[in-house]
Amino acid sequence: MINQKLPKIWYGGDYNPEQWDKEIMNEDLRMFKLSGIDVATLNVFSWALSQPNEGTYDFAWLDEIIDRLYENGTYVCLATSTGAHPAWMARKYPDVLRVDFEGRKRKFGGRHNSCPNSPTYRKYSERIAEKLAERYKDHPAVLIWHVSNEYGGYCYCNHCADGFRNWLQERYTTLETLNKVWNTGFWGHTFYEWEEIVPPNALSEEWGVDNTNFQGISLDYRRFMSDSLLDCYKLEYNAIKKHTPDLPVTTNLMGLYKELDYFKWAKHLDVVSWDNYPSLNTPISLTAMTHDLMRGLKQGQPFMLMEQTPSQQNWQPYNSLKRPGVMKLWSYQAVAHGADTVLFFQLRRSVGACEKYHGAVIEHVGHEHTRVFRECAELGSELQKLSDSLLDTRIKARVAIVFDWENRWAIELSSGPTVALKYVDEVHKYYDALFQQNIQADLIGTDTDLSDYDIVIAPVLYMVKKGYAKRVEDFVRSGGTFLTTFFSGIVNENDIVSLGGYPGELREVLGIWAEEIDALFPDQSNQIVLTEPWGALSGEYKCGLLCDLIHSEGAEIKAVYGSDFYQGMPALTVNKFGAGHAWYVATSPEPSFLQGFLANLCKEKGITAPIPPVPGVEISQRTNENETYLFILNHNDQPVNVDLGTLNGTDLIAGQPVTNTVTLSAKGTLILSIS
Amino acid sequence: MINQKLPKIWYGGDYNPEQWDKEIMNEDLRMFKLSGIDVATLNVFSWALSQPNEGTYDFAWLDEIIDRLYENGTYVCLATSTGAHPAWMARKYPDVLRVDFEGRKRKFGGRHNSCPNSPTYRKYSERIAEKLAERYKDHPAVLIWHVSNEYGGYCYCNHCADGFRNWLQERYTTLETLNKVWNTGFWGHTFYEWEEIVPPNALSEEWGVDNTNFQGISLDYRRFMSDSLLDCYKLEYNAIKKHTPDLPVTTNLMGLYKELDYFKWAKHLDVVSWDNYPSLNTPISLTAMTHDLMRGLKQGQPFMLMEQTPSQQNWQPYNSLKRPGVMKLWSYQAVAHGADTVLFFQLRRSVGACEKYHGAVIEHVGHEHTRVFRECAELGSELQKLSDSLLDTRIKARVAIVFDWENRWAIELSSGPTVALKYVDEVHKYYDALFQQNIQADLIGTDTDLSDYDIVIAPVLYMVKKGYAKRVEDFVRSGGTFLTTFFSGIVNENDIVSLGGYPGELREVLGIWAEEIDALFPDQSNQIVLTEPWGALSGEYKCGLLCDLIHSEGAEIKAVYGSDFYQGMPALTVNKFGAGHAWYVATSPEPSFLQGFLANLCKEKGITAPIPPVPGVEISQRTNENETYLFILNHNDQPVNVDLGTLNGTDLIAGQPVTNTVTLSAKGTLILSIS
Amino acid sequence: MINQKLPKIWYGGDYNPEQWDKEIMNEDLRMFKLSGIDVATLNVFSWALSQPNEGTYDFAWLDEIIDRLYENGTYVCLATSTGAHPAWMARKYPDVLRVDFEGRKRKFGGRHNSCPNSPTYRKYSERIAEKLAERYKDHPAVLIWHVSNEYGGYCYCNHCADGFRNWLQERYTTLETLNKVWNTGFWGHTFYEWEEIVPPNALSEEWGVDNTNFQGISLDYRRFMSDSLLDCYKLEYNAIKKHTPDLPVTTNLMGLYKELDYFKWAKHLDVVSWDNYPSLNTPISLTAMTHDLMRGLKQGQPFMLMEQTPSQQNWQPYNSLKRPGVMKLWSYQAVAHGADTVLFFQLRRSVGACEKYHGAVIEHVGHEHTRVFRECAELGSELQKLSDSLLDTRIKARVAIVFDWENRWAIELSSGPTVALKYVDEVHKYYDALFQQNIQADLIGTDTDLSDYDIVIAPVLYMVKKGYAKRVEDFVRSGGTFLTTFFSGIVNENDIVSLGGYPGELREVLGIWAEEIDALFPDQSNQIVLTEPWGALSGEYKCGLLCDLIHSEGAEIKAVYGSDFYQGMPALTVNKFGAGHAWYVATSPEPSFLQGFLANLCKEKGITAPIPPVPGVEISQRTNENETYLFILNHNDQPVNVDLGTLNGTDLIAGQPVTNTVTLSAKGTLILSIS
Repeated sequence: MINQKLPKIWYGGDYNPEQWDKEIMNEDLRMFKLSGIDVATLNVFSWALSQPNEGTYDFAWLDEIIDRLYENGTYVCLATSTGAHPAWMARKYPDVLRVDFEGRKRKFGGRHNSCPNSPTYRKYSERIAEKLAERYKDHPAVLIWHVSNEYGGYCYCNHCADGFRNWLQERYTTLETLNKVWNTGFWGHTFYEWEEIVPPNALSEEWGVDNTNFQGISLDYRRFMSDSLLDCYKLEYNAIKKHTPDLPVTTNLMGLYKELDYFKWAKHLDVVSWDNYPSLNTPISLTAMTHDLMRGLKQGQPFMLMEQTPSQQNWQPYNSLKRPGVMKLWSYQAVAHGADTVLFFQLRRSVGACEKYHGAVIEHVGHEHTRVFRECAELGSELQKLSDSLLDTRIKARVAIVFDWENRWAIELSSGPTVALKYVDEVHKYYDALFQQNIQADLIGTDTDLSDYDIVIAPVLYMVKKGYAKRVEDFVRSGGTFLTTFFSGIVNENDIVSLGGYPGELREVLGIWAEEIDALFPDQSNQIVLTEPWGALSGEYKCGLLCDLIHSEGAEIKAVYGSDFYQGMPALTVNKFGAGHAWYVATSPEPSFLQGFLANLCKEKGITAPIPPVPGVEISQRTNENETYLFILNHNDQPVNVDLGTLNGTDLIAGQPVTNTVTLSAKGTLILSIS
Repeated sequence: MINQKLPKIWYGGDYNPEQWDKEIMNEDLRMFKLSGIDVATLNVFSWALSQPNEGTYDFAWLDEIIDRLYENGTYVCLATSTGAHPAWMARKYPDVLRVDFEGRKRKFGGRHNSCPNSPTYRKYSERIAEKLAERYKDHPAVLIWHVSNEYGGYCYCNHCADGFRNWLQERYTTLETLNKVWNTGFWGHTFYEWEEIVPPNALSEEWGVDNTNFQGISLDYRRFMSDSLLDCYKLEYNAIKKHTPDLPVTTNLMGLYKELDYFKWAKHLDVVSWDNYPSLNTPISLTAMTHDLMRGLKQGQPFMLMEQTPSQQNWQPYNSLKRPGVMKLWSYQAVAHGADTVLFFQLRRSVGACEKYHGAVIEHVGHEHTRVFRECAELGSELQKLSDSLLDTRIKARVAIVFDWENRWAIELSSGPTVALKYVDEVHKYYDALFQQNIQADLIGTDTDLSDYDIVIAPVLYMVKKGYAKRVEDFVRSGGTFLTTFFSGIVNENDIVSLGGYPGELREVLGIWAEEIDALFPDQSNQIVLTEPWGALSGEYKCGLLCDLIHSEGAEIKAVYGSDFYQGMPALTVNKFGAGHAWYVATSPEPSFLQGFLANLCKEKGITAPIPPVPGVEISQRTNENETYLFILNHNDQPVNVDLGTLNGTDLIAGQPVTNTVTLSAKGTLILSIS
Repeated sequence: MINQKLPKIWYGGDYNPEQWDKEIMNEDLRMFKLSGIDVATLNVFSWALSQPNEGTYDFAWLDEIIDRLYENGTYVCLATSTGAHPAWMARKYPDVLRVDFEGRKRKFGGRHNSCPNSPTYRKYSERIAEKLAERYKDHPAVLIWHVSNEYGGYCYCNHCADGFRNWLQERYTTLETLNKVWNTGFWGHTFYEWEEIVPPNALSEEWGVDNTNFQGISLDYRRFMSDSLLDCYKLEYNAIKKHTPDLPVTTNLMGLYKELDYFKWAKHLDVVSWDNYPSLNTPISLTAMTHDLMRGLKQGQPFMLMEQTPSQQNWQPYNSLKRPGVMKLWSYQAVAHGADTVLFFQLRRSVGACEKYHGAVIEHVGHEHTRVFRECAELGSELQKLSDSLLDTRIKARVAIVFDWENRWAIELSSGPTVALKYVDEVHKYYDALFQQNIQADLIGTDTDLSDYDIVIAPVLYMVKKGYAKRVEDFVRSGGTFLTTFFSGIVNENDIVSLGGYPGELREVLGIWAEEIDALFPDQSNQIVLTEPWGALSGEYKCGLLCDLIHSEGAEIKAVYGSDFYQGMPALTVNKFGAGHAWYVATSPEPSFLQGFLANLCKEKGITAPIPPVPGVEISQRTNENETYLFILNHNDQPVNVDLGTLNGTDLIAGQPVTNTVTLSAKGTLILSIS
């Protein structure tokens, strides 16, 4: 638990007083108090300020800010400032500049601008992190380290090319193995020297977004780039830990960001933190799923909401205001899913450059008499009331959904069978079907132990890594319910097809053979027709995207296709395997099918919701040894009555007992402490 | 007045006899006479012809053409030929070649191909301009100089980078100031040496169209590029003026072209000239507005219509023919808005390369028996009849609309609140509302004196330059009516937010505070609801795009929002300030609202139309001390009756008196001389 | 005739046993026998395997494969493997790497990756072809040579620039001529040294797809690139022929592929072969037309179907399965149009890289119990029954449609009058109108003798090459019916306009003058109104795209425009010229017009269909001196009855006599031998 030094839900966010005249900071401190803000994230982009040239470091400005904050009761989340290198460094050491996907050497500018394999960047980013750690290791204000910022983006320079060859040599030892696992016999790609291998970009194997001529090299380059950036993070992490072994270290992740394998990253983070920027039209359940994924990165350990906007964003096409109550509601949604902090980007709006129209607690008008500030202050006050009660409580889910970045990369790099297959969408369909029924789920990686769960759902488990099929079999054999879908079991972790019939290594546990895979045009659909009514399901449902043409090899056929030349072939099967069951959904169904289907599975496993679903109302539970906290979140624009049934407890904020039916205001939240 | 040497509306256009066998020119001269053509624009793209290598100049071909034209009664608009450099120059001096937005050094080809900071280009473009001026300074055929051609396009080479640093040093003196006005503290952009600054393009700060990470540098680069190209123009201008101080000099502008600040350019043009290429679906009022903008560049001085097509264009997706009568109608539209010339691109159609399907007076068939030629000849004959009557007459408008390129750049470079905000569209909405009511407007820059006007409309006055708010206040205080809209008063001329509450420096004169700005999705709308019926307005009107959430600070609330959480907040306010009124339109309304609104304002100020509106009929008036010329332009496909009320006068072409009701043919024009 | 050594329709396809463990090949051989496969295409992408470094060649692996195949009754189509160069070569000799359209030097990767003017590529591709020819010249398994693979793509490197200058010098001798034919006077493009000329790409004259500032250079660069790649082919061709003068040599073409002038290529192919990859929504008649075009490349000589997929593709957006029966139906469609082979890509599906989801005879499951295999085996068995009966039979068409790559390039490079004009679409409209009436057509080039035909249709004959107008006149004078359309006769082969009125050199034979060309927006249309009912035509029909405004100069007016300002002007004319007729269709009509129109023309010429049209049923006839084979192809999803009228013959596969009415199953084919 990270919050010991300040045992409450931390409240605050990114803060840049160095960009302002000093008297402004007095106003800020006054307003922090008014709004219950107690944590400021500092130094995120101040590298150029702290290191004005190669030999000089100057942290006096930072000393003063930290001191003033601490004197005024505000703690610090201290960033290492390496999210963007200084202009002087780019000029003196061009190796810090990236070569982009088009093969162009970039110049100074923007963000995410450092080559992760640049010797200069590695040397100086590690050095400044260490200098900061040395300097502030004993400062009582510092709660946590924030390494760099939103790592991301790839580079294709010669340093990266060399690094890639070393990484490959490490992984495959010989070129013979590499030629094998990349299937280089195809299109005459046989390599005889390591130096013949070049990064896959628009000048070699790739084009556009995720189009490649050679899946093997493209997949490995994604792994290598994720690892390269992780190495940068680890250099700073270790430099810091030398001096402050007890202070937690994190870096802010970006939820469903595609380019980094966050499960691998999370092993090196003391706590996961992330930046939550839904748009007006992001489904509520997609935000919920992303929170659960971030929580899943470290097996359920609470995470930090590191950034969210108090109101508006600036980089979306149409930057709607967060409607009244929405900021608070979405803050509680984060907490409901495992966040132990509520932090904003940003505490004060900047006056210039590209984020000046990004919302802030303190707007350009500069005073507290704004809707946004009032809502922030109201939340600040409530978080003070909550004190430490929710800290480090956990979510107990009996259903797990597998999420795997490497699988995602492989699926979306695939040439065929359809460009319309998007991994996150398919995962979200299953998550949403549970969410609509108030069933909590964990998002887990492929390393996670399955035995804690009753049901494991692995949508589009295209890539089956070494040993994973065995683990699925063990899980099912021991009584678990496993579910996967079309286009699963196809390849190993090098994107090489498992021969002998789809779904490859999963064929036995699933008891089916997928002979062909039909890709439907966007305006085409087929139907899933139940062979007989089953629980919440009967009749027929729409499906599309891909249709596996499967044969049962022992599995029971629960539904068949309704049309086309494969009418009557199985569309949904279940195989009894040991004490458990393995399900195969051969196509991508409409939501109503998935809700009925997962309702049936949960019912079979005795998994029930705390309270029955109410449209637009989200439920989540956090618990510890003594307490259960039930979050009821009303996403509707209208008040809503929620029947608590036999539940009763205490409104954690109001401190009032609550029983029977409770009325939540529009966008209102109730946190019920159930003893 | 430029037309003294040839005191009539000049008629002719671009002509390239050097691309043809000599006997063709005899035919051309014959047909010029048939069609009343008396001006040929020569030498626009003949640099490679006149200067076949570094040391040789050969104008004998041009001597002969000018002489032959003059002997046959055709005058000359003489271009300097520097619109595209010769291939030999690109090969010998690659510094003339641009580096494009993607950072790629270009090769020889296309147009707009010279780097404006290339020492070679500057040296040789100045030199050939001077040689031409020396040679033809006494030739009686030459009426005017046409420098280069349609200046445009940016470069990002090292010469430009150096030039940019010098320009910045000139403007800001110290890096400290530059760091301040660009707010470089953001994203660690602090500069310690001028050399660290690189041009903002796809390799540094920008991407796509008008997307940037750093508004300050991007805005200044646009200023610098506009100035760089202007410097090229000025070099030629000065070289010419040394030899022909009394001949006017111009360069052909491109109306609403975004990349150059034409208000700044116009100061260095003796006369504004421009190329008018509407498409079949360009609104008539947008063409009218562009003419008025071109006229406004030099405070109402008549301008030259330098290019238009007799019929077809070639570079649009679907190049419709100009319907019968349209060429003549649009020519008179130009004259009605202040043009004292009617010139075409081109007099004879080229046989090869990319403009061979661009219309010409003389088509590929080569004779006069074509619809297009007949229409040209008919217009030529009418222009002869008009003689010098319209020359140098002026348009007297009591309403001004502010148009500012720097504001436009800043708005469209902004990251947030919406990508849908296009400056020209918003300006055009207000212009069109006046146009539909036969109210003439001037388009003015931010330097223009406001005291000549009764009403000043400044749509989206996002950037308020130093001293401009004071000038608005003086204008209103003295009784003027000022009108601005949502997203105004936000930044200063460095795109740095004016703190203390929007609309910044305009807050006092407008009597309001804009607390938040909501961005609507394209399918969303709100309503403007009048608090009580007011003149032409009552009930409610649709609005969208952006909705400022404003509070009155003394302003009267004339209308409020009809829905969403800001229902009931002000949507239209007016503030009495001194003897005048300042209006704020907090959102982007539908056209019917703006027509009613501006009708009310005009009525209050006693501004009336010469004759009442007739659908599809455009009205304009040019006047001098003695005469008023009323243009009535029928854009309809059918004849139309226009009631002249108490007006009566003389049909300037037919020479007949006209009273009461007059019938205009489809696409017909009436120019009424009113004594 | 190529099939002498194996006198039947060859059956098989691409095969890569070198990518597999050796035991797999035993399974393959077993399944080849099961499915009647007798030809394997080998060595398509094995360059890197056979030449592991500059000095070493190793064909032992290939010896073994060829021997094993031959021992098992499978012949070989032997590729030269130069479709993609080895990685070591790219590293050692970067001149083999292309510079792309954006001017970027590419790195190793992908396909189509060799610069056609690279000295290294030319040297080593020729050398390996020769080595293969030497080695296998006497091997009884080898039926034919397959040079490289799907030649395509352009390069813009310095070697190509030099090559282009030489090519131009060869073609035009002097710069004076070049300046003339490119009309370089336009936009100051005059060249004084050959070295000033640079390839036209995104850094010089072109942008996007087929947009150029200079048509002349862009057109010639396409010719040059087509010739450069052809030179590469010819180097290999000649090297092979030195050793195996009697074995046929081909390279697989790509149907309507735009970048190569296949009529010019075909002169150097012993037999045309091509790869047929229709999508689910490709019109049947477009595939038919492409077959006819491939047949037309060598004046009707049977061609090879070199590649098609047994079921799925992988590179389309949505890769549908070929429905049951479709693979066989489309195979017979190829044969019906002149194919003497049916070959697949691929015999066994690869396990990795970008084509692993491309269908194959042997799928990843690896056994024969799949729908796809069963269908392949069924076809294999039928092809064995057909034996040599169809080989080298010909199609006798009395209607020819002109197809010309140079014309296509010029049309689509044109700036104006419309971006919507696509040459292939216009050609296909005419082809389809014949197809729907069971009238066979030949697709011919501009070299083809016209005297064999009764009707010659030349849609959008924009470019009229030297002497072609004369040939058209001779054809018509001798009694032929010639038909062309809007935007024809405009330019010569350098894209220079023929002066004196459109349609230029065709004006006399057509008896019309096209004064103007109107381009319609996509949502606009006009009407073709018959002046009086004529055969299958009466009343009015929709038209659009472009409308020529024509005047008759002797031609009879058969139809006029129905609206707009050119209402009543001719839209369809016919000119009696000598003993024949020349038709002009001034706009792009709807299909029903073209069907009626061509029905009328055919009727006049006594051209009739073998049997009347049945919806969804395709007809084709192949004949030799003794026999006529009528193909009836049912593309419907339902069985269909076809009335044979007085025809009767023998079902060539079933061996049964067929008379009167025959019922074809859904997707069924009947090949009727008519004596």
